[in-house]
Amino acid sequence: MPTIIGHNYIAGQRSAAGNIIVNSVDASTGENLPYSFYQATLEEVDAAAKAAAAVYPTYRNLSAERRAQFLDAIADELDLLGDAFVALVCRETALPAARIQGERGRTSGQMRLFAKVLRRGDFYGARIDQALPDRQPLPRPDLRQYRIGLGPVAVFGASNFPLAFSTAGGDTASALAAGCPVVFKAHSGHMATAELVADAIIRAAEKTAMPAGVFNMIYGGGVGEALVKHPAIQAVGFTGSLKGGRALCDMAAARPQPIPVFAEMSSINPVILLPEALEVRAESVARDLTASVVQGCGQFCTNPGLVIGIRSPQFSAFVQQVAGLMEDQPAQTMLNAGTLSSYGKGLQKLLAHPGIQHLAGSPQQGNQARPQLFKADVGLLLDGDEVLQEEVFGPTTVFVEVADHAQLNAALNALHGQLTATIIGEPADFERFGELTTLLEQKVGRILLNGYPTGVEVCDSMVHGGPYPATSDARGTSVGTLAIDRFLRPVCFQNYPDSLLPDALKAANPLGISRLVNGQATREAQ
Amino acid sequence: MPTIIGHNYIAGQRSAAGNIIVNSVDASTGENLPYSFYQATLEEVDAAAKAAAAVYPTYRNLSAERRAQFLDAIADELDLLGDAFVALVCRETALPAARIQGERGRTSGQMRLFAKVLRRGDFYGARIDQALPDRQPLPRPDLRQYRIGLGPVAVFGASNFPLAFSTAGGDTASALAAGCPVVFKAHSGHMATAELVADAIIRAAEKTAMPAGVFNMIYGGGVGEALVKHPAIQAVGFTGSLKGGRALCDMAAARPQPIPVFAEMSSINPVILLPEALEVRAESVARDLTASVVQGCGQFCTNPGLVIGIRSPQFSAFVQQVAGLMEDQPAQTMLNAGTLSSYGKGLQKLLAHPGIQHLAGSPQQGNQARPQLFKADVGLLLDGDEVLQEEVFGPTTVFVEVADHAQLNAALNALHGQLTATIIGEPADFERFGELTTLLEQKVGRILLNGYPTGVEVCDSMVHGGPYPATSDARGTSVGTLAIDRFLRPVCFQNYPDSLLPDALKAANPLGISRLVNGQATREAQ
Repeated sequence: MPTIIGHNYIAGQRSAAGNIIVNSVDASTGENLPYSFYQATLEEVDAAAKAAAAVYPTYRNLSAERRAQFLDAIADELDLLGDAFVALVCRETALPAARIQGERGRTSGQMRLFAKVLRRGDFYGARIDQALPDRQPLPRPDLRQYRIGLGPVAVFGASNFPLAFSTAGGDTASALAAGCPVVFKAHSGHMATAELVADAIIRAAEKTAMPAGVFNMIYGGGVGEALVKHPAIQAVGFTGSLKGGRALCDMAAARPQPIPVFAEMSSINPVILLPEALEVRAESVARDLTASVVQGCGQFCTNPGLVIGIRSPQFSAFVQQVAGLMEDQPAQTMLNAGTLSSYGKGLQKLLAHPGIQHLAGSPQQGNQARPQLFKADVGLLLDGDEVLQEEVFGPTTVFVEVADHAQLNAALNALHGQLTATIIGEPADFERFGELTTLLEQKVGRILLNGYPTGVEVCDSMVHGGPYPATSDARGTSVGTLAIDRFLRPVCFQNYPDSLLPDALKAANPLGISRLVNGQATREAQ
Repeated sequence: MPTIIGHNYIAGQRSAAGNIIVNSVDASTGENLPYSFYQATLEEVDAAAKAAAAVYPTYRNLSAERRAQFLDAIADELDLLGDAFVALVCRETALPAARIQGERGRTSGQMRLFAKVLRRGDFYGARIDQALPDRQPLPRPDLRQYRIGLGPVAVFGASNFPLAFSTAGGDTASALAAGCPVVFKAHSGHMATAELVADAIIRAAEKTAMPAGVFNMIYGGGVGEALVKHPAIQAVGFTGSLKGGRALCDMAAARPQPIPVFAEMSSINPVILLPEALEVRAESVARDLTASVVQGCGQFCTNPGLVIGIRSPQFSAFVQQVAGLMEDQPAQTMLNAGTLSSYGKGLQKLLAHPGIQHLAGSPQQGNQARPQLFKADVGLLLDGDEVLQEEVFGPTTVFVEVADHAQLNAALNALHGQLTATIIGEPADFERFGELTTLLEQKVGRILLNGYPTGVEVCDSMVHGGPYPATSDARGTSVGTLAIDRFLRPVCFQNYPDSLLPDALKAANPLGISRLVNGQATREAQ
């Protein structure tokens, strides 16, 4: 088994100044693993934030090519994490090995994609307005704009993607790409995993001669608050619960200097079943939808938690079909005891509600999550009952039957912000329900047509964001290359001689990037 | 004189339901003008926000060309506001007619620039990743992203630019361009001006067949809080004091659904005088700097409030020179009694501080602002004394002498966030102080070289923003075309048939815009 030291990562060194020890747990048995970790002291949190701040001026000023080499090196190191690593992640998370192998590739691929963004250069947002010395009544000076990293970023990873949304995940990748040093708060659910990934990042930093302190990591409960409140921290990336995310947002907003937080939090990801689709392919929809609900034990931010259909014999039959399929789904081990406990509490709320009917699933008990199916009165949606707006994280979903087209629109209008919405329909449906797209894009970050939301492609066009409470800022995304925008800010140079300008803005365009020059996009020298 | 009704603007109608009357004041005499205004009731605030929300789905879905026509029509209406209008603005603000005429052109030009942005189409941020059906291990679905308006925006104008930062100013222009209906809180300092400008916007809305409610305006004190807390409002643009801006930020962050606020607040805009420049052109620098300090009675967000030089006989002589020039500057009437009172209080704080010396200016009294010059111990900067970090809005500036190059850097590092920093230097200075640009870009939104910060060009490259407390979010700007980004959010379409996609993302590229397709910028059909 891999060697785990359990010390915090500060400025390229390991540090264990505290005396609170936290343990890693086998997710399947609940037993302690032989890995213990030193919770960071307040002084260590301070040192980690200061290390990031100290290195920021150097790191952000490295060329984009140097930062790209760093990200590529991290990707290579991640790919080299072998079978023992995969086995360890599986023990800490109860996720299957194939999933972890896939997620490793996704995580290294994500790093390489941000390296591409750095080389492509559009992240600079370079803009040039050349001087107009003869303009009347006043001349225009030469003005040039590009974007720089905000400063040190605090990142809080998620339990459900121990690689892709964690230590070297999308928030870390986009922050490092933007030129922002990172202080990562290791997730308590996979601390040994975090250590091995952090080691990979540190090896990559050393191989590419990055300044020590470009990546820091701290362990322990309660250290997050001190981190978010630290004056050196300039932005926060978070993936997790609504309660946790909102608490960080409130702390960040109440600082003497408020800072932006991108928190990806809670989404029930409505799926809308249109009549013609139910008419022609109810069986395959039932199968695919059920698979999406129970995939990975339902532990996805984009898990479909609400399925809406219009009253009809076909919809009634469909509900019965899914109920039958759900009865056949096996119980699965969740990420950790806390997640299982939350799942149980979420089910209790649904079971206790007079407007909600239990359709399928054996009583939740034991140490695994049992898939469940519910049906709720549409009135709960229309009246804004919180029970239907809250995500129940796990293999469960709630059907809602609406009376007609008008009530469908009313129900969708009553939804809070979501990461995704899905429409299952046939061409005839799209004609009849033509306003659905317009309505849904006001509610969500991504709309899928005849697909299922539980796959999130890492690419330029992805939006893994959406209106509150899906995220704390609908203008951002935590997956895809646009994620870098969260950590960049514009700077303008007025009347600067060419020699003093950053390369991205020099007349000769030495980086060969596309720039908006006097209102026209061009790669030409100016 | 123009007819002023004094009613609130709600959904294209005028409304005067309340019984609190507020009056417009002659800025030069302090006397009431014959214009009275009905403070909006809470019901009217609610109605204005709901009107904006009701029209949002329609307005945001108008083509960019239609919105551009609306902005162009506003510009035309602004240009038609004639001499009587200018005279009225002058009475309400005590600003000279030539300035108002110039500002009118700036404001209509700003509208036309955003119309250009809409036609250019880069604001869409269109991105396409085409399907890869044969990809292993999983196919990639077709994914397409563009940006839409956030929703209704509340705008709070500034007193010092009654046109360019007010009713039809940059925040309104960028919100309307983004597809966001606006609820504007009329500034108490120029309510009659606001009415005439609002009328111009409404005429333009009617001429271009915009939905009623695209622009709403409310009068009165205390209505801002209800507006920012209204659930229909999705973003806030503000220009004003640190106290006022921070209060709005705190309210917005504490809402059940937090919303983004871009507040442009407080900046002292340091000017750094380098030795060689003082050696070769002290006289012209002294003249130009003095002119920048007293221009418009110092009532600019970018007024140079701090001037830093390195100890030398030349710097001492320079300080004397500026002191002499400042003694010659006439008193000027400020925007309103509140501004004059704040100026007086700001001066009192400087005068009362044991580390600050008064160098020039006759005692502040009467109903005009008298230009003043101070010199502060560098220790106040190094120790973070608040007295030097707070903007004194008016025709005054503070000199600080640093011992040497190292102390200069230390003093700059101690500064809070700023809208601008200015370097006055010669080529030999830039060699010797090569790190200045790097250091300053961490502190400010715009760096000027051998210019003065009080002119803010409206163009693609401008940044009128900066780290806190200059603004509440360093990622934005309130001047220049990038301002539209504050009010846009991305939406992704997955596996959508071409016919259901918005024009910006259709395969044929009917808008002819530049799009990022499979990682390459192109205008070709996809």
